[in-house]
Amino acid sequence: MSILQTLILFSFLLSASHAAVQDFCVADLSAPEGPAGYSCKKVSAVTVNDFVFSGLGVAGNTSNLIKAAVTTAFVNQFPGLNGLGISLARLDIAPGGVIPLHTHPGGSEVLLVLQGTICAGFISSSANTVYLKTLNKGDSMIFPQGLLHFQLNSGKGPALAIVSFSSPSPGLQIVDFALFANNFPSELVEATTFLDDAQVKKLKGVLGGTG
Amino acid sequence: MSILQTLILFSFLLSASHAAVQDFCVADLSAPEGPAGYSCKKVSAVTVNDFVFSGLGVAGNTSNLIKAAVTTAFVNQFPGLNGLGISLARLDIAPGGVIPLHTHPGGSEVLLVLQGTICAGFISSSANTVYLKTLNKGDSMIFPQGLLHFQLNSGKGPALAIVSFSSPSPGLQIVDFALFANNFPSELVEATTFLDDAQVKKLKGVLGGTG
Amino acid sequence: MSILQTLILFSFLLSASHAAVQDFCVADLSAPEGPAGYSCKKVSAVTVNDFVFSGLGVAGNTSNLIKAAVTTAFVNQFPGLNGLGISLARLDIAPGGVIPLHTHPGGSEVLLVLQGTICAGFISSSANTVYLKTLNKGDSMIFPQGLLHFQLNSGKGPALAIVSFSSPSPGLQIVDFALFANNFPSELVEATTFLDDAQVKKLKGVLGGTG
Amino acid sequence: MSILQTLILFSFLLSASHAAVQDFCVADLSAPEGPAGYSCKKVSAVTVNDFVFSGLGVAGNTSNLIKAAVTTAFVNQFPGLNGLGISLARLDIAPGGVIPLHTHPGGSEVLLVLQGTICAGFISSSANTVYLKTLNKGDSMIFPQGLLHFQLNSGKGPALAIVSFSSPSPGLQIVDFALFANNFPSELVEATTFLDDAQVKKLKGVLGGTG
Amino acid sequence: MSILQTLILFSFLLSASHAAVQDFCVADLSAPEGPAGYSCKKVSAVTVNDFVFSGLGVAGNTSNLIKAAVTTAFVNQFPGLNGLGISLARLDIAPGGVIPLHTHPGGSEVLLVLQGTICAGFISSSANTVYLKTLNKGDSMIFPQGLLHFQLNSGKGPALAIVSFSSPSPGLQIVDFALFANNFPSELVEATTFLDDAQVKKLKGVLGGTG
Amino acid sequence: MSILQTLILFSFLLSASHAAVQDFCVADLSAPEGPAGYSCKKVSAVTVNDFVFSGLGVAGNTSNLIKAAVTTAFVNQFPGLNGLGISLARLDIAPGGVIPLHTHPGGSEVLLVLQGTICAGFISSSANTVYLKTLNKGDSMIFPQGLLHFQLNSGKGPALAIVSFSSPSPGLQIVDFALFANNFPSELVEATTFLDDAQVKKLKGVLGGTG
Repeated sequence: MSILQTLILFSFLLSASHAAVQDFCVADLSAPEGPAGYSCKKVSAVTVNDFVFSGLGVAGNTSNLIKAAVTTAFVNQFPGLNGLGISLARLDIAPGGVIPLHTHPGGSEVLLVLQGTICAGFISSSANTVYLKTLNKGDSMIFPQGLLHFQLNSGKGPALAIVSFSSPSPGLQIVDFALFANNFPSELVEATTFLDDAQVKKLKGVLGGTG
Repeated sequence: MSILQTLILFSFLLSASHAAVQDFCVADLSAPEGPAGYSCKKVSAVTVNDFVFSGLGVAGNTSNLIKAAVTTAFVNQFPGLNGLGISLARLDIAPGGVIPLHTHPGGSEVLLVLQGTICAGFISSSANTVYLKTLNKGDSMIFPQGLLHFQLNSGKGPALAIVSFSSPSPGLQIVDFALFANNFPSELVEATTFLDDAQVKKLKGVLGGTG
Repeated sequence: MSILQTLILFSFLLSASHAAVQDFCVADLSAPEGPAGYSCKKVSAVTVNDFVFSGLGVAGNTSNLIKAAVTTAFVNQFPGLNGLGISLARLDIAPGGVIPLHTHPGGSEVLLVLQGTICAGFISSSANTVYLKTLNKGDSMIFPQGLLHFQLNSGKGPALAIVSFSSPSPGLQIVDFALFANNFPSELVEATTFLDDAQVKKLKGVLGGTG
Repeated sequence: MSILQTLILFSFLLSASHAAVQDFCVADLSAPEGPAGYSCKKVSAVTVNDFVFSGLGVAGNTSNLIKAAVTTAFVNQFPGLNGLGISLARLDIAPGGVIPLHTHPGGSEVLLVLQGTICAGFISSSANTVYLKTLNKGDSMIFPQGLLHFQLNSGKGPALAIVSFSSPSPGLQIVDFALFANNFPSELVEATTFLDDAQVKKLKGVLGGTG
Repeated sequence: MSILQTLILFSFLLSASHAAVQDFCVADLSAPEGPAGYSCKKVSAVTVNDFVFSGLGVAGNTSNLIKAAVTTAFVNQFPGLNGLGISLARLDIAPGGVIPLHTHPGGSEVLLVLQGTICAGFISSSANTVYLKTLNKGDSMIFPQGLLHFQLNSGKGPALAIVSFSSPSPGLQIVDFALFANNFPSELVEATTFLDDAQVKKLKGVLGGTG
Repeated sequence: MSILQTLILFSFLLSASHAAVQDFCVADLSAPEGPAGYSCKKVSAVTVNDFVFSGLGVAGNTSNLIKAAVTTAFVNQFPGLNGLGISLARLDIAPGGVIPLHTHPGGSEVLLVLQGTICAGFISSSANTVYLKTLNKGDSMIFPQGLLHFQLNSGKGPALAIVSFSSPSPGLQIVDFALFANNFPSELVEATTFLDDAQVKKLKGVLGGTG
């Protein structure tokens, strides 16, 4: 076709393209954040590396109290997820290790076991029903949004799982850390959980809590 | 446990915590606002007082034309509500007072009577059905999003109600104020409502409208 | 105007009205439920009483372990709320009573104190920060979605509060009941919370748990 | 390729296809409706005609009180729109005709003038600001969700416009019909709008209202 | 009423108005953009012209390869649409012209034929079913979100259609331009589409692609 | 505590529990489906197995034209995902294999490489920019909603990846199958893609298309 037609075609292309700024919204972590997520990086500054994250290839360090590690690929680590309603994390759980009872305030989680054996469960709020399952390699399990759940290595060797969330920023609230790893006054912890003073003080000691 | 373990535990805690910026998004009323709400105040600057509002404890001044007052706890008064899909208001209605026919463009409303007797109603758009009810202390009523509704003190004493909205910024559009308290040209008001010129001029006079 | 015009006008009215079935969707609690809520009751069968609920006028019975009661006006009690993104509840808390540490998996909560003094708080997931406040009559506080929070009567007399939620079915998950009021095996409770066996068995005894 | 490969390929095709039931959800108007819309017609029963609607090609009858007609292509007329967040309507306005002051409780509207001259406007709820514009062929105007607005033929000939809505079921609430075309008791209309009794009775007479 | 009452009334008006900033959010195209859209222009700077767009009155230039033009009224051209979930475009298709196979990643499309005859179709992802229809003036057709579709002038004269989208920024991805109008390496195009090398090189030549 | 207290406590528990039907909504695949998903299975009939899926542990059969297989864990295979905004799939790609150019109309995808080397890419709609990356074990990449993308085994051995989607039913539309594996008339394929007749006929032959 003629040069003219090509130019006309491209101007068409260009004009149409104006609408597509929202193909994606890579997070500019230094710009204002709103209820829907971070501000978008300028498209002209976006590269393929904004859509790639390599942090999940490295095993987390499980030499800690819980003998487990959660390595997150949430929007703060993986800016390309901003506004797209999804994120990932890897769970490394050594023998005897556990991801303690916790919730994700902002999303549902689906777990896929890649190695080892994991005993997982969640509790419904409707009737406090406990849904428990021992999961082996290749098994996946869904933990509905906001419900208390846990994962525990019930096998002999290390366990590895990949978890996905229905939010780029699902949050992670571990009950023990919420109660015992901060300055939550012991008498309030006790009054709102019915735990004994000795128990509370003991776990505050372990988890570095005060008050 | 050893200091080392504690440190490792906390680094774990810290890394996991990155995802939870979106636990809440307290409005920074001076920063850019978007379709989903205001920009978030930095978490480090947030205090418990951002999540507390005391303005609903004071009765509104009902010495006015409508013998009623609406005291709002919307995101502009209560920044902690930003992005959380909820807000509050208190209605004080003196004997003979009324919250005139109005809509909330941005959300549904549920009302709870705390004192007195309120005659409330809304009109459906499907068949212009009028849903009317006299509500006493302890009664609640839902007004579905965007539909015309009103509340009227049908008792002998003052009435007090608390209303909740399914948006931090539901808006409030009172039909009389939309028609008569601005510069909406009388001939257009008349042409689009079939009201008589004298009626329109009279109410513009009362409500301070021009044109 | 002529009869003819009236008929024409009404046929217009009628045709336009077809679109407004979704003014509201009163729950038919006996029909299929989906992710967005219950099926809608036929509009022809809907009456104003579907939009009114009177259950919040009666104080809950606080003669129980927690010296408190939660009376819910969620969609299952108040079908008119279906699909409208809001619900209510009343909290009655006797002196020394408490609404134990809990979450609402499905929505945010805003509380308004109507009587007495309430010490309330929530814990963020980002850094386990505790946001604590003593609330008096007229004070309101927001508890962001999914975060652990509590309310405790810190006054001398009874306390009464109205809470609103950003969902018609927010759920209520009380940590103690999730751990101790069901058949959650003690060894799993202990492994996922680090609580001592004696503590777990004691609270299971109090709350009627087994295993 | 071999027959075998073809079969394998197709079984792959088939298994992958299971996920796509939600390509669309053509409304089964006779099945249960929920907050998100109607139940879906079985995909096997869906034909291209479910995605096509021809009703907007015919001019509405403007021989009525308002000298105008609204012909809707909402989900009840056009089942293929179900769940897709969009709908259409055509406005025919004879000289001197008007689409009276109204709102759409469920969505925003964008209007495009195809013929004639239309004076359109909406009123904000924030400060009762009136946004007025005379629109000619080819002009489009947006009316934000839930705000009072109108369209009036301000030209000499007939006017035609196409309007789109951000909902398959936006609703249409005309203030006059909500006030005067039903059994809304006159004294309540007067108390909640400050209109004079004579005015209310007069318009109830015109619009067929009672009470 | 007295001046005092008027003042009191207006202060009421003012206080209530604080909640309605979100009546609309006119895009400030120069301010930060987030996942939900652009930042809002200050209400004080908003005029009626922000809600009006006149670009759809002019026929697009169809003197190009596809003998067609898409003129968009998306948020980047029509800032008043920001956050309102809707946008428009006009399609001009000369005889023999076509809007090539494309998708809108961000929304559903409904098309209304204003002039001429258009053969339109979309393909489902569930079973690759082709839904084809020849549309005449007055016919509308819905193209569900994200599915491949096209419009082709199957008449003798020019065709004109108005399309609406369920997003202010639906995007437009034309398969040919995605494959052949950029630097997508030919061997990758061939490997992922099974097209022959000659075919790929030929179309890259026509559409200005490289690699 | 006394039996009485226990009973009172449990009645409290019971009444509160009414709100939590929506903890989850396990799909009843035989009941009506709506725009938000399937109807919910009765909670009393739900077991832990509704939340567990084991199909991702088995490698897909790659003895086919594309030398690849997609094994989906979408809501139709994994009913517990219904309404929770997430799903999974596994990709098995033999050496030389490819997941051909495709889109997911209903959601974004994030991929994690578990084995081998994958060359992946997507094309933006804004400027037809190609974002290409070679991914190794442990690398993850996000493909924003609705955009054309592909995955190709660029290594010597088999490749395995787990993909997550931001929808329980994201759909999968492969361009080649949409064009060539159905009865899409060749002349229409050619007119809307500019492909040569011979090319179209050849691929229809390979993929079993007609017309």
